[in-house]
Amino acid sequence: MTSKLNIAIVGATGVVGSIMRELLAAEREKWGEIRLIASPRSAGKVLNVGDEEITVQAMSPEVFEGIDIAHFDLPDEVSAEWVPVAAEKGAIVIDKSAHFRMEDDVPLVAPEANPEDVRNRPRNIIANANCTTLTLIPSIAPLHREFGLASMSVASYQAASGGGKAGLEALYEQVNKTTPADGLGTKPGDVREALGEEANEAFGAPLAWNVVPKVGGWRDGGWTSEELKVRNESRKMLGHPTLKVASTCVRVPVAIGHAQAVHATFENDVTVEQARAVLEKAEGVTVVDDPGNNVYPTSIDSAGISGTQVGRLRQSVDFPNSLEFFTVGDNLIKGAAENSMQVAELLRKELTES
Amino acid sequence: MTSKLNIAIVGATGVVGSIMRELLAAEREKWGEIRLIASPRSAGKVLNVGDEEITVQAMSPEVFEGIDIAHFDLPDEVSAEWVPVAAEKGAIVIDKSAHFRMEDDVPLVAPEANPEDVRNRPRNIIANANCTTLTLIPSIAPLHREFGLASMSVASYQAASGGGKAGLEALYEQVNKTTPADGLGTKPGDVREALGEEANEAFGAPLAWNVVPKVGGWRDGGWTSEELKVRNESRKMLGHPTLKVASTCVRVPVAIGHAQAVHATFENDVTVEQARAVLEKAEGVTVVDDPGNNVYPTSIDSAGISGTQVGRLRQSVDFPNSLEFFTVGDNLIKGAAENSMQVAELLRKELTES
Repeated sequence: MTSKLNIAIVGATGVVGSIMRELLAAEREKWGEIRLIASPRSAGKVLNVGDEEITVQAMSPEVFEGIDIAHFDLPDEVSAEWVPVAAEKGAIVIDKSAHFRMEDDVPLVAPEANPEDVRNRPRNIIANANCTTLTLIPSIAPLHREFGLASMSVASYQAASGGGKAGLEALYEQVNKTTPADGLGTKPGDVREALGEEANEAFGAPLAWNVVPKVGGWRDGGWTSEELKVRNESRKMLGHPTLKVASTCVRVPVAIGHAQAVHATFENDVTVEQARAVLEKAEGVTVVDDPGNNVYPTSIDSAGISGTQVGRLRQSVDFPNSLEFFTVGDNLIKGAAENSMQVAELLRKELTES
Repeated sequence: MTSKLNIAIVGATGVVGSIMRELLAAEREKWGEIRLIASPRSAGKVLNVGDEEITVQAMSPEVFEGIDIAHFDLPDEVSAEWVPVAAEKGAIVIDKSAHFRMEDDVPLVAPEANPEDVRNRPRNIIANANCTTLTLIPSIAPLHREFGLASMSVASYQAASGGGKAGLEALYEQVNKTTPADGLGTKPGDVREALGEEANEAFGAPLAWNVVPKVGGWRDGGWTSEELKVRNESRKMLGHPTLKVASTCVRVPVAIGHAQAVHATFENDVTVEQARAVLEKAEGVTVVDDPGNNVYPTSIDSAGISGTQVGRLRQSVDFPNSLEFFTVGDNLIKGAAENSMQVAELLRKELTES
């Protein structure tokens, strides 16, 4: 096949869908037809990809006919139903839901970690990892390749937009209702009282002026689904099934940008200078690390930016072969849309340039 | 001595000073004279301790005459100068600055960890630890006593009020200027552009809609002073000079309440049930941990509350003898004023009840 590949964006109306359309517009000439697909409720809407106006089509088996690559960004249970339908129709599906990620015959791919795995797709399905793991992988994968990762302890600082448009709007509404000239939030119950019970809906607890140590659903042993994803998806993408991972996932009152504080221990000796040299050559991560000039990664500086940033690189004082560092990445870009586009680019090269 | 002890609050006009006055008012009958001391600029101001109106006196050697216990809450360099003056005048000084904490002949005391150390004060000085370490100690100290702490990796989520009144006001001002109806902060540079360069002053980077992985000053090797305090002050209070500590300290857009995600490894076997039993009996910490009912500690629920809270207790999946947990505490109460009051109470018992 040498003609251009036809693309579907499934879940085109969401916050990630809108970034997918922006990213596609920037490389429009690479692709054939672009089809936008959503729930019947959104069908008929006209959305832009660059200057091109495209009418959203309702999900159906027929809508995938002629599609080469379908990017899915839908709730887990909807992906579970529709991804196999699209794959059956001949599309290679790049799915952002959690549903297929850990299945043995579905590769889970971040190009910075395991680009070769896109070729092994017996079900025509390739999964994308969750946004926290994806914004961590561009730093940890090259360090693992060079020094052999033995264990990592990760604490996350996750943005409201990880909960999509609804999450972002909930945070804005909560902050609008509680922004104090007078110090609201400084007394017990202040924020909860101002916001009422419904403020628990979006994140489990109010997020304005707060940090909420619960992302995702509850799992056995008091773990959250997000914490187990960081462990299991990192292991799968790094091809390291015995990697030791400790993880605590926390929502913070940030609009966009997931951050992680990482304590990583390696099989081999590693210095900060060696790690910096590896990270400076790595794809998908920029070293932002100059304490003397007050330069380090922050969430707002990751918003709207391709790839991820790493800084605060330190040699562990008490642990051999260990480093501390801090990473940030836009959870909607590298954490979702961009990774999906990178996987599509690997497919495009494979299918049209060979 | 059986008469009531006379108390000085040095730094009475600050945000911690005002909490000291509240806490003192609640146990006014225990103490003799209460003297409020501040810089000459604040001298003459009238402040309340409960119903009692007290005129603030300017710092001088003479102002400490007749004082039994002086609570100091001043910048490091001012404490360095004036703490020895007060001690020389016969006051036992409980100092919240960092200046004396690591000196061998100054005990560093949290009653939950090492109450016995108050008796060993050759210089008449007892130091209080920093607010991050103090809000962590009530959970980690009893677990260490029971299971033998070998190492811990700590990531903090620290409130703006850790930077005092100025920090709190800077956060409120930044949020007021950037609170979006329209999604400000979702594009690169949005928050920085809206706030300008001066928003870097309080925290190094804008704190509204952001997390800032830099608390305190820079030290060798890319560490911050706060991160080294968590390590060194934990070691000293736990009496555990070989404790391995990894720490990343991060400021978050929260008014009050410091939180920590902790990965702790012990010398001995430990289960979640055993840890919970130990924590439920411990002083200064409340177990807030019932995932099924969506119960876990959050920053806003610690604000204005005595002691600390711990939850999200989990058995580490991949690490032997290890637990994950999440702690919160009001950085101005247990993190500062309350610890100082607890140390004073230990002194009161020693000096008036023996």
